[in-house]
Amino acid sequence: MDIAARRKADPAHWGLATAIRALAMDAVEAANSGHPGMPMGMADVATVLFRDHLKFDAAAPNWFNRDRFVLSAGHGSMLIYALLHLTGYEQMSLDQIRNFRQWGAITAGHPEYGHVEGVETTTGPLGQGIATAVGMAIAEEAMRAQFGADLCSHKTWVIAGDGCLMEGISQEAIALAGHQKLGNLIVLWDDNDITIDGRVSLSDSTDQAKRFQASGWRTLACDGHDPADIARALADAASGADGRPVLVACKTVIGYGAPKKQDTSGAHGSPLGAEEIAAVRAAYGWEHGPFVVPEDILAEWRAIGARGRAEREAWAARVDAAPNRDEFARRISGVPSDRLGPTIAALKEQALASKPKVATRKASEMVLEVVNPELPETIGGSADLTGSNNTRTKDLGVFDPQNRKGRYINYGIREHGMAAAMNGIWLHGGLRPYGGTFMCFTDYARGAMRLSALMGLPVVYVMTHDSIGLGEDGPTHQPVEHLAMLRATPNTLTFRPCDLIETAEAWEIALSSETTPSVLALSRQNLPTLRETAGENLTAKGAYVLREASKKAPEVILMATGSEVEIAVAAREALEAKGIPTRVVSVPSMELFRDQPESYRRQVLPKGPVRVAIEAAVRQPWDWLLLGEGGKEKKAGFIGMTGFGASAPAPALYKAFGITAEAAVDEARRLLG
Amino acid sequence: MDIAARRKADPAHWGLATAIRALAMDAVEAANSGHPGMPMGMADVATVLFRDHLKFDAAAPNWFNRDRFVLSAGHGSMLIYALLHLTGYEQMSLDQIRNFRQWGAITAGHPEYGHVEGVETTTGPLGQGIATAVGMAIAEEAMRAQFGADLCSHKTWVIAGDGCLMEGISQEAIALAGHQKLGNLIVLWDDNDITIDGRVSLSDSTDQAKRFQASGWRTLACDGHDPADIARALADAASGADGRPVLVACKTVIGYGAPKKQDTSGAHGSPLGAEEIAAVRAAYGWEHGPFVVPEDILAEWRAIGARGRAEREAWAARVDAAPNRDEFARRISGVPSDRLGPTIAALKEQALASKPKVATRKASEMVLEVVNPELPETIGGSADLTGSNNTRTKDLGVFDPQNRKGRYINYGIREHGMAAAMNGIWLHGGLRPYGGTFMCFTDYARGAMRLSALMGLPVVYVMTHDSIGLGEDGPTHQPVEHLAMLRATPNTLTFRPCDLIETAEAWEIALSSETTPSVLALSRQNLPTLRETAGENLTAKGAYVLREASKKAPEVILMATGSEVEIAVAAREALEAKGIPTRVVSVPSMELFRDQPESYRRQVLPKGPVRVAIEAAVRQPWDWLLLGEGGKEKKAGFIGMTGFGASAPAPALYKAFGITAEAAVDEARRLLG
Repeated sequence: MDIAARRKADPAHWGLATAIRALAMDAVEAANSGHPGMPMGMADVATVLFRDHLKFDAAAPNWFNRDRFVLSAGHGSMLIYALLHLTGYEQMSLDQIRNFRQWGAITAGHPEYGHVEGVETTTGPLGQGIATAVGMAIAEEAMRAQFGADLCSHKTWVIAGDGCLMEGISQEAIALAGHQKLGNLIVLWDDNDITIDGRVSLSDSTDQAKRFQASGWRTLACDGHDPADIARALADAASGADGRPVLVACKTVIGYGAPKKQDTSGAHGSPLGAEEIAAVRAAYGWEHGPFVVPEDILAEWRAIGARGRAEREAWAARVDAAPNRDEFARRISGVPSDRLGPTIAALKEQALASKPKVATRKASEMVLEVVNPELPETIGGSADLTGSNNTRTKDLGVFDPQNRKGRYINYGIREHGMAAAMNGIWLHGGLRPYGGTFMCFTDYARGAMRLSALMGLPVVYVMTHDSIGLGEDGPTHQPVEHLAMLRATPNTLTFRPCDLIETAEAWEIALSSETTPSVLALSRQNLPTLRETAGENLTAKGAYVLREASKKAPEVILMATGSEVEIAVAAREALEAKGIPTRVVSVPSMELFRDQPESYRRQVLPKGPVRVAIEAAVRQPWDWLLLGEGGKEKKAGFIGMTGFGASAPAPALYKAFGITAEAAVDEARRLLG
Repeated sequence: MDIAARRKADPAHWGLATAIRALAMDAVEAANSGHPGMPMGMADVATVLFRDHLKFDAAAPNWFNRDRFVLSAGHGSMLIYALLHLTGYEQMSLDQIRNFRQWGAITAGHPEYGHVEGVETTTGPLGQGIATAVGMAIAEEAMRAQFGADLCSHKTWVIAGDGCLMEGISQEAIALAGHQKLGNLIVLWDDNDITIDGRVSLSDSTDQAKRFQASGWRTLACDGHDPADIARALADAASGADGRPVLVACKTVIGYGAPKKQDTSGAHGSPLGAEEIAAVRAAYGWEHGPFVVPEDILAEWRAIGARGRAEREAWAARVDAAPNRDEFARRISGVPSDRLGPTIAALKEQALASKPKVATRKASEMVLEVVNPELPETIGGSADLTGSNNTRTKDLGVFDPQNRKGRYINYGIREHGMAAAMNGIWLHGGLRPYGGTFMCFTDYARGAMRLSALMGLPVVYVMTHDSIGLGEDGPTHQPVEHLAMLRATPNTLTFRPCDLIETAEAWEIALSSETTPSVLALSRQNLPTLRETAGENLTAKGAYVLREASKKAPEVILMATGSEVEIAVAAREALEAKGIPTRVVSVPSMELFRDQPESYRRQVLPKGPVRVAIEAAVRQPWDWLLLGEGGKEKKAGFIGMTGFGASAPAPALYKAFGITAEAAVDEARRLLG
């Protein structure tokens, strides 16, 4: 059916959808930058979705029980911006659309969570949206189980492109979703046969429907430009007939209606140009100037935007009437239970009394054993390393289709999918996710971990086996550069605690955070309790004096983190025995130390003494503490790694790589001259 | 069929396979560390593969035309170590097996390329093996097309576990392999239903055969403990009947024969224990002590190890007789064409004469346009950003099933799969791969990029759009921490050239490297030619004086990389105009500067002057150049990023984030006091 026939067949739909298309191409043209083709291709599908199915109220973007809508193909950002404007989200004025991709506008190149209401998650890095949506759908199931369908019951809709489906993370996501039978998750695939380099057939021959079926999905298809056919497919998808997640392959034409560029990669990522836009307007029969939406069409869209109001008010009334409404309100606010502080404090006191010698991964488990029963909002998991990450506590139960009240997720061997799902769980609201893997596999999860930081989501990464201290598994499993990577990443708290007390403190900070993800770098090997106080959360200061020099003025300051603090303490003993006053500074979080007032930093690291840092990793993040903060090159040394590790028992490795108390003593003495 | 019946049914096979099993469980027991279950489960399959199919000669591990064997499930390292020992690889003595996972042994916890002959690639991070094997199979097709089947014609065999297939990278790999119709690639899936956390059904329900079929694979299945059934399936797979890659699902029992632990995750990752081992020996009817292989069985295995000798000699004779044998020898040696140097030199001279103002991504294309015709070993590609990465040159042609002589690979939207495939292409030999994506998506490729570094493979990553300078696409696409990440990674050369001449020099170094991967961080935006000499490769020094102060002794040294060198040069003009002698140091590679003698480093960065570094990224890697190397905290400043970027035109962003010549001038003057 050609465009003229489409217009005639359903003029009401045509007007709604074309308003999206026109805004998209006009905004991209004005910005001289952006992606018109995808919004033009998916406008018909999005129109039917928003008109008939999506549960939302434009006047209350953060209504908890709304359907979630994720634009996984984030480059098509003008699709969502147009929808937000048309349906009446207050923030999304026409001026914002006009200022697409300009400094200060909320209409960023790719949709950014927190930047604009109505954007549920930041997308752009392909595949992240679909994988994050899996987390949202998990959270919906969990919250429904915990609070009942009256308070939580909605769908999660995703628009994904070929790029999303080619990225490996999509396989992790769809396999997890299929296994978990997330029947309220619906993916609308923009099946347009085009990628940036040309036709999909240049690089892919995958039968996507068969692939999704193989992972336990139901699959449907529709003509993505026929509103009746779209309506049929979406109604079928939304029926949730058999509990499986649903893929709807929407056959579309990228840049639909652009005479020269449609159905080519030329419509993907650059403005159409004035001439082509004029031709599109003619083809569409759209006789309105740039950014002009006729009043009748706008009114129809605004009515769609208000469609969910009654349902929202009914929900609010149910919440008001619910006996557990206060706890529900707390849960969706993200504020942790006030039981957190006392629980951590009690554990620290116990630790101080019993001084256990345990791996910090075990210490983390000890924290979770007391915290999880007090914080019903936690939802844990591991990428198939439960017994190694020590992430599962006795009370949790396993979250699966038979037990949606379970609070432990077997994510499978899917680090990237896990990280993205955790983002989605937090974004959904009501739950606080943490998940574990080996720290080296930060590499696999990086794409989603960066989005945790960029979006400001306080998810917790439990990264065990954090150095050569893991021993025999060898260099493929031994992080050396990962602490530097994490510390270089903005808005990320990297903790490397040295004992149970610091581990408990790190967890307290992580679980109290509202806008920053935390990474806990935890040892495989046992470590003694080194802290001698339990009151104040000293980890919150980032670095602090763990052992003071025997005389008031230290001649040497040893800095260390995690498993190397024990080495620093031993080196101090040896130096003190030689009459050299030596201070040990534990540095559980460089980020938090950087945030301290200069007076405190100067107190911990006074000018003058020799400084030696000890960490079984590369030196890069240490230079500012060794050479800056009043440090001097001639008086600074580093005991750590300069290359990759090796396979051998941990003690042999520490000796072979020279990360020992003796080496620290020698370095300090050399620097003292 | 129970074990006793298996033994009786085919005692010859039983003896061969059980020698593997016994060595594996004994070595893990001696190390008190390791993974016995997988070798015990896959010993039957591996025995049939090595006995009947794998083309190799244990006396010549690096024979170019051998079949490649990749143990993607790298934790089962004792499987390959046992096979190497039994078939007679000289390095793999019984002592090495006895010293499994010990310091100094070649029998590392996971198989490491370069550490031991016969290990084709480092595995352990799951999914990497299968994805790397795709690269090997691509290289085989390409070399066969370029040199003929007489010189290159072999298969690539992979053993992969459930973990490999759950990782997202596996989807990128199998989709690429299916699309490319890599009919000589055969994956043997250890279908044992067990992962570390328990049964696969805890976390996955994927129909793997259907999934592989959806990506264009042929699938077979066999009883992985029935030698006749395995032989049938492997013969079918090896027939290469229809040009599709082949998956063989081998139904196995993890820890086969261990009465208490078989078919449980208890057999996966820890020693069986003395009692269980005794019970296994009884069940196997294996009356030999630890590490003892009866002479008749060893002799059979050694005969298998020598089976390929005649074929290897015939191949060597064909090579000797080939008219292009010298070029073939050069190609498989990895030494670049001696045309590289003169070609780069000529381009630099032209650049010096014409001083083009081009983006360094375009500069990179200009380099490739002259280099690719001279270096037939290059094989380029992009993860669907060809026009943005500027990676495809006119002469290359597209590598696909219809044109195996093509030298450009459309990798699809698969950054991780591309990086792993590049590793495999280099490991195979004969080709020098490069591939492009946006620098921010380093995040997606990290897992394989780390293996490039760990294995020492000189692949080239063309990472364009390297800062906020990409503009409107916004923070999801703007790297800020990635330079720090790359510089923190051992054995990785990170180049950020400032103009065409530096770009050409970086490419010259990258294409000459034999043991180090290179990352080229390239701008989207145009940059002027700043270099005033073209002779010596100054990039090879890592940092050098680009503009000298007007007086002999500079009072200010401005350091910068890439697109910020232009800003440094402008700041120098302004400072000089104010009578402040200012030097500009370009720092295209921190790693190479670190390797220079101290005298040179001191010459470039003398003590005394104020130092200001300018880079549109985080400061972390700069501290050593600002505060070390004779620098002083009170005289050092940094102009760069402290958080994520934003969406706006690039000039607006540089201004908003204060990365300007004015800011550099102000900082220098502030530091001068």
